[in-house]
Amino acid sequence: MWPKPTKRLKLGFVGGGRGALVGEWHAMGARMSNRWEIVAGALSSKPDIAAESAKDWMLERSYDDFAVMAAAEAAHPDGIDAVAICTPNHTHFTIAKAFLENGIGVICDKPMVTTMDEARELVSLVQQSGVFFGVTYTYSFHSMVRQMKAMVAKGMIGKVRQAHVEYVQDWASGASDPATKQAAWRRDPALAGRASVTGDIGTHAFHLIHFVTGEPVNEVSARFHICGGAERMEDTAFMQLKMGADIPATLWCTQAAPGNACGLRLRVYGESGGLEWNQEHPEIVHHTRVGEPTQILMRGHGKGMLPEAEHMIRLPRGHAEGVSDAWCSLYTEMAIALEAHRAGERANVMVPDVVDGARGVFFVDASADSAEADGAWQKCWFEG
Amino acid sequence: MWPKPTKRLKLGFVGGGRGALVGEWHAMGARMSNRWEIVAGALSSKPDIAAESAKDWMLERSYDDFAVMAAAEAAHPDGIDAVAICTPNHTHFTIAKAFLENGIGVICDKPMVTTMDEARELVSLVQQSGVFFGVTYTYSFHSMVRQMKAMVAKGMIGKVRQAHVEYVQDWASGASDPATKQAAWRRDPALAGRASVTGDIGTHAFHLIHFVTGEPVNEVSARFHICGGAERMEDTAFMQLKMGADIPATLWCTQAAPGNACGLRLRVYGESGGLEWNQEHPEIVHHTRVGEPTQILMRGHGKGMLPEAEHMIRLPRGHAEGVSDAWCSLYTEMAIALEAHRAGERANVMVPDVVDGARGVFFVDASADSAEADGAWQKCWFEG
Amino acid sequence: MWPKPTKRLKLGFVGGGRGALVGEWHAMGARMSNRWEIVAGALSSKPDIAAESAKDWMLERSYDDFAVMAAAEAAHPDGIDAVAICTPNHTHFTIAKAFLENGIGVICDKPMVTTMDEARELVSLVQQSGVFFGVTYTYSFHSMVRQMKAMVAKGMIGKVRQAHVEYVQDWASGASDPATKQAAWRRDPALAGRASVTGDIGTHAFHLIHFVTGEPVNEVSARFHICGGAERMEDTAFMQLKMGADIPATLWCTQAAPGNACGLRLRVYGESGGLEWNQEHPEIVHHTRVGEPTQILMRGHGKGMLPEAEHMIRLPRGHAEGVSDAWCSLYTEMAIALEAHRAGERANVMVPDVVDGARGVFFVDASADSAEADGAWQKCWFEG
Amino acid sequence: MWPKPTKRLKLGFVGGGRGALVGEWHAMGARMSNRWEIVAGALSSKPDIAAESAKDWMLERSYDDFAVMAAAEAAHPDGIDAVAICTPNHTHFTIAKAFLENGIGVICDKPMVTTMDEARELVSLVQQSGVFFGVTYTYSFHSMVRQMKAMVAKGMIGKVRQAHVEYVQDWASGASDPATKQAAWRRDPALAGRASVTGDIGTHAFHLIHFVTGEPVNEVSARFHICGGAERMEDTAFMQLKMGADIPATLWCTQAAPGNACGLRLRVYGESGGLEWNQEHPEIVHHTRVGEPTQILMRGHGKGMLPEAEHMIRLPRGHAEGVSDAWCSLYTEMAIALEAHRAGERANVMVPDVVDGARGVFFVDASADSAEADGAWQKCWFEG
Repeated sequence: MWPKPTKRLKLGFVGGGRGALVGEWHAMGARMSNRWEIVAGALSSKPDIAAESAKDWMLERSYDDFAVMAAAEAAHPDGIDAVAICTPNHTHFTIAKAFLENGIGVICDKPMVTTMDEARELVSLVQQSGVFFGVTYTYSFHSMVRQMKAMVAKGMIGKVRQAHVEYVQDWASGASDPATKQAAWRRDPALAGRASVTGDIGTHAFHLIHFVTGEPVNEVSARFHICGGAERMEDTAFMQLKMGADIPATLWCTQAAPGNACGLRLRVYGESGGLEWNQEHPEIVHHTRVGEPTQILMRGHGKGMLPEAEHMIRLPRGHAEGVSDAWCSLYTEMAIALEAHRAGERANVMVPDVVDGARGVFFVDASADSAEADGAWQKCWFEG
Repeated sequence: MWPKPTKRLKLGFVGGGRGALVGEWHAMGARMSNRWEIVAGALSSKPDIAAESAKDWMLERSYDDFAVMAAAEAAHPDGIDAVAICTPNHTHFTIAKAFLENGIGVICDKPMVTTMDEARELVSLVQQSGVFFGVTYTYSFHSMVRQMKAMVAKGMIGKVRQAHVEYVQDWASGASDPATKQAAWRRDPALAGRASVTGDIGTHAFHLIHFVTGEPVNEVSARFHICGGAERMEDTAFMQLKMGADIPATLWCTQAAPGNACGLRLRVYGESGGLEWNQEHPEIVHHTRVGEPTQILMRGHGKGMLPEAEHMIRLPRGHAEGVSDAWCSLYTEMAIALEAHRAGERANVMVPDVVDGARGVFFVDASADSAEADGAWQKCWFEG
Repeated sequence: MWPKPTKRLKLGFVGGGRGALVGEWHAMGARMSNRWEIVAGALSSKPDIAAESAKDWMLERSYDDFAVMAAAEAAHPDGIDAVAICTPNHTHFTIAKAFLENGIGVICDKPMVTTMDEARELVSLVQQSGVFFGVTYTYSFHSMVRQMKAMVAKGMIGKVRQAHVEYVQDWASGASDPATKQAAWRRDPALAGRASVTGDIGTHAFHLIHFVTGEPVNEVSARFHICGGAERMEDTAFMQLKMGADIPATLWCTQAAPGNACGLRLRVYGESGGLEWNQEHPEIVHHTRVGEPTQILMRGHGKGMLPEAEHMIRLPRGHAEGVSDAWCSLYTEMAIALEAHRAGERANVMVPDVVDGARGVFFVDASADSAEADGAWQKCWFEG
Repeated sequence: MWPKPTKRLKLGFVGGGRGALVGEWHAMGARMSNRWEIVAGALSSKPDIAAESAKDWMLERSYDDFAVMAAAEAAHPDGIDAVAICTPNHTHFTIAKAFLENGIGVICDKPMVTTMDEARELVSLVQQSGVFFGVTYTYSFHSMVRQMKAMVAKGMIGKVRQAHVEYVQDWASGASDPATKQAAWRRDPALAGRASVTGDIGTHAFHLIHFVTGEPVNEVSARFHICGGAERMEDTAFMQLKMGADIPATLWCTQAAPGNACGLRLRVYGESGGLEWNQEHPEIVHHTRVGEPTQILMRGHGKGMLPEAEHMIRLPRGHAEGVSDAWCSLYTEMAIALEAHRAGERANVMVPDVVDGARGVFFVDASADSAEADGAWQKCWFEG
């Protein structure tokens, strides 16, 4: 069980204003958790949008500029405990650095940054400053993902022998990418980093397969493709992975597979059983023990749920918890982790940290290197 | 599109303290909506639990007694705009009355009350006092339920010819009911009213079939059964309904069907098409036009979504919205409706009102009457 | 295990010629079983169609008239062992009688006949003549239906407490019935009997719920409706049943539910577990033990299959067996039963007999009586 | 529409006796099609099993030796028109050759042979002899596979941009392969050829992805793995393919994924739409047009079915056709093709021929070469 809250922490936002996508999800999760109060923001780099958006959110303090915000909040007697960074990838580094240097905790969207130089610098900065830093690999906060992780860890499917993860979308299908702001920066190497779909959703798949199996991804063999309307960067990647001690795995991500909305699917097969999960129906895990019928594990109390997942339950079995609930759990654990961090303790939560963030960046780099070498194996794991 | 909020309304709670079930769901929805601030509560009738629970929720003002709370909040300069009532059924009436008489808006769980005398008195009181009153038929706040309602209203399945709703659970399967507080009051006629499963989940099914089809339920033929471990009251009801102008329908509710968690399923068939929905996968509606393949309508932008549902979307297609999101939409519309109500306006929302609440009570009464007469038809519709 | 065949029995057909529907299914099953050789037929009452159809089927002997056929085959040294009757309902009686009186076994489609007078006469005739008689309730020959029957019989879900069966189609949706020969006779009381959908597919649902639970259907309360384009007879029926010792059940059949092809679905709930099956995916049974996760039982060897079902398997798990396989099993068991019958033995098979056929007719009668009395309970079970 | 049969062809079998697996499936399909009479066989290389099995099948002529059979049947006035070869892979070549050289048509299981030398010799022999030769890629005889092929060919999903096929089983999961005759020869390089799972089920996946897209598989990059109890040969293969004009694809096959029976799944994505199919539910194709809801195409008349698939239908929509029906269609088209072949005509059917068979062998070879070179691209397409 999570410890009960005793006060609400103060949260600020950079990004997330009108026209943005993910900021609102962060905010919902924070509100729902009842462990945060959103009080300040630089919601847009455009002053008028920043101001209007702050009004929409009923913020106490609105800024035009994240650097100003970092300094002002650090000086404010009731300044923010952490900032949520929900801006395009290429800006994460500078923003995160500004807040860390002002002693303000950071909750950063993924991919954490766009180059390993930046990633390494952030890791150092976090380790030296001792300031809290979390990365929002949201899918790892679904109860049933925790259930799978616990089942694997307890040996319920035996030694893992192969694993397969895919993240399949269709918004970029067709003759050309949609003319949206989101699509634009995701396909611009200057803004997105060395890879597009790989950084955008491949990193989620990469984190998930590691998180559930508990195994490092030692090497990657990747090939990049354009299967939709993208022009400059890949919208599709086919990968093979070497995990742990000789576990073969595949990773496929695409934004050009008509009929797939957010098809993040994980399949893990071990010596004595298998697990299958689909993010579009996050309440259900199919579990098969070798020689027995497949079981439908459904989020809820009892009926095969392990304590590692059961303690997170808000709604009874059959009342669907969705992505908002995952965000709520994420902001719950971020709050618990931040408070423990300040107290010099280690909370019993599973918040991805700056090293996990750097691993995602390393994975993107390694994939891009491999793709340039037509699928040659590349070292993929950042040890931190 | 919902109008943007300009301030947060103040919300109080009666019920919902430690050990309670639904109060937390109300609270999550209210917080997530960002249109309410929960400031006061009489979270339990037991003083120590009330106090501890208020601390858990970080409430500003905690009360032991709802009547004291109603008076105090009415007198408070920053008193609550509305109270959420999340107590056992038989207490709703007295509590609601106390707040209404103090001019405080009421958001009442269902079934609204346990007798038609109480229901009629509440209807009068609400109509005379002009105070806001909403009932939490939460399922009607799912985007895809709104989608179905709009599709039927626009004639997309033609004239409705038959409809089927079922709400199938399994918590009461086996030789005896579980020894929980929830189970206890649900099976005690003094506390639950004239029916058990019928009031508890049958009312949800009743409201849903009416809400989506837009048709009144004129008559009911019901038979009550005990199929699990219940002793004093029905855990299962089989019903046939006469809806609108000669539309036959069925309603089945049970708590004793092993393998079913919260199986609220609606099927509506018209002259030119059909719709099917299952609450356990609330993102999806199956829509069939006569002579064409079935379509999988999935919550999200475009791809067949109607504006009546599309404007409610928070997350992109494939990122599951669940029951928390329905509660968020409910508290969003409650806030909008309350503010419009105060301004003497009518908001463009779909909040169930006191007459909808009374209809649920009338339905329970009519079902109980019919069951006592071995399924004889009973008038079922409260006109208000 | 079924005993291996030692020779192929000779089979004749009445009905099944060009333009007919079900005759071809019988024939496929008989051929696939490798226990029958189809040698003779009066495939149509129209001589030219009979002749052409016999050529299509490469029959040795073709007749224009079933009475002539019955006499000729009885006299033929290599005459047929049994006749399959695949004609409209109202003709079954006369045809069956003709063959029985000539000492030829009968395999009769359902509903067996259209009045209880006929049914009773057939029962007497079969009992007195000692000639073999089987009725083709095909769904009871699916392996997974046998699996469910065996599970209930072994107490794997405990005492049955409620059951629900539905058979939902959509071919008669819309403003008018399709102008086909099939639709025409199904809606003509002179040809179809006292009920339309009830006789056509309701009898399948009725047989299935009895077959799986092993419980008699003591009483029925039925209401008939027209929900599609039918004019003279019901296309939809809503029923409640009293089964065995006080087991409540429902039966719903309709041909006017857009989006449903052949939705025969059975749900049986007992004191310690539940079973769910859907004919459109006949390989799978969902089995839930109270307090445990639902299991997906899938046809195949091991993994929870009981010998009563496992011995019928032709294809390994995951290679779908469909309705053709059920017909194959039906004709396999018909052959075994006929040979045992001749030898004065009782085969270890589950062939529906003339009493089962009469029960279906009794059910149609009782349903029609109940519907005329607005759902009053009617005795429903023919004891034989 | 298939032309109606005018007589039954004579069919013989090599292999398929007691203890064998696939022979019975061939036989069922042949019988069900009503276009073949099974009259002769060398059902086992062990004389006693051959004799007993021939009795089980009620064969007219039984042989101990396929070479004797080939000669005898060629000389017999009523000799077989074709032989079905259902023996382990390494024996196909010699058997096929014997029958071809005796002028008897061959219906050969896959993989056709185990080396490209054999494959090339068979291609020559067939082309020179003019004798009929078909290969049993059975899955391409499912109606909905034909539907997909026709949809792609008609441009209903636009130019194909990526495709994914997987064949996932679990019989070889766990610490060691099952001690069955089937498992034994599949893991013995002397009997199975250069690859195990790749030849056994990978060839099906390979043929399916080509058959549906109509595109050649130009190159393969394969890595072989052991993920279950196999010792000498791969039970798992991960592949990437280059198809047609620059279409990337993946192929994954495994026998060690607990919870998967016969998971042959195909996903094809084009510029304007996508198609998804799962062999375990062969009646259904999911079809998505870019920007529209996904449609569930279900086998049956109308509702989006194309004539290329609709003409094959035996049972109405919702009455599941399964693998037996695919075998029936296969033997139907084999009969039609053989008769046309003899008449020097080209039948309007889709029977895989000797070149298709050789392509499967070439694919196995190329995959094994690639796997030995850690996934280096290998030419994969045999032009014939």
